Amino acid sequence: MVNYQKIELGKISEIIKHENGKVFLHDILGLTGCEISVNTVPKNFKTPFNHKHKQNEEVYIILKGEGIITVDNDHINVKEGSVIKVLAAASRTIENKGDNELSFICIQTKENSLKQFGVGDAELC
Amino acid sequence: MVNYQKIELGKISEIIKHENGKVFLHDILGLTGCEISVNTVPKNFKTPFNHKHKQNEEVYIILKGEGIITVDNDHINVKEGSVIKVLAAASRTIENKGDNELSFICIQTKENSLKQFGVGDAELC
Repeated sequence: MVNYQKIELGKISEIIKHENGKVFLHDILGLTGCEISVNTVPKNFKTPFNHKHKQNEEVYIILKGEGIITVDNDHINVKEGSVIKVLAAASRTIENKGDNELSFICIQTKENSLKQFGVGDAELC
Repeated sequence: MVNYQKIELGKISEIIKHENGKVFLHDILGLTGCEISVNTVPKNFKTPFNHKHKQNEEVYIILKGEGIITVDNDHINVKEGSVIKVLAAASRTIENKGDNELSFICIQTKENSLKQFGVGDAELC
């Protein structure tokens, strides 16, 4: 049994050519602990709807560009290196407010599902 | 109650200035579903030890540079846009084989912890 799976997305900036500027990794890689989207969206892009989650917290990691993530009534400026955790119960949208593309990764995991991590979960071999 | 937390990492390339070229997000952001490290490591960097995990699968997303991820006995070339899922039971290391910095994100989640995702977990609001 092979203990890994690999895909090639190509340059992150070229993900803009995919449908809605997104690639979802869960189904492609058979992930069992998270859904991940890798995104590059054009100027003026905005999530087409406000949404909350039932079980899952999200982490947004901004790789390039400038935008606004709105969580409930807070408008949060983001740029390269901004990282935001959003709890399931919050409504959220992301908007590209820069003159160029906005690239980001969004990671969705079940709240309170991580039991141990780092050295606590590692085993030297 | 505020439903989000934000930090600023600054430019991803400058994470090389942090200890071991890594920033771990779990404790900083109070994550409950994953540990995430954001990494920029110098030429010739190699994980100092082979390790497996007890519970957690990992996803490596390469943002910049060129390297080799070794999973068990397989040496896998990676570059911008390469994404690899590694099961808990596999041993793994990552090595920078390029002439420049290697930037990547590593996401650690408990295997089989995600119960629903995407539209199945979303609620319009």
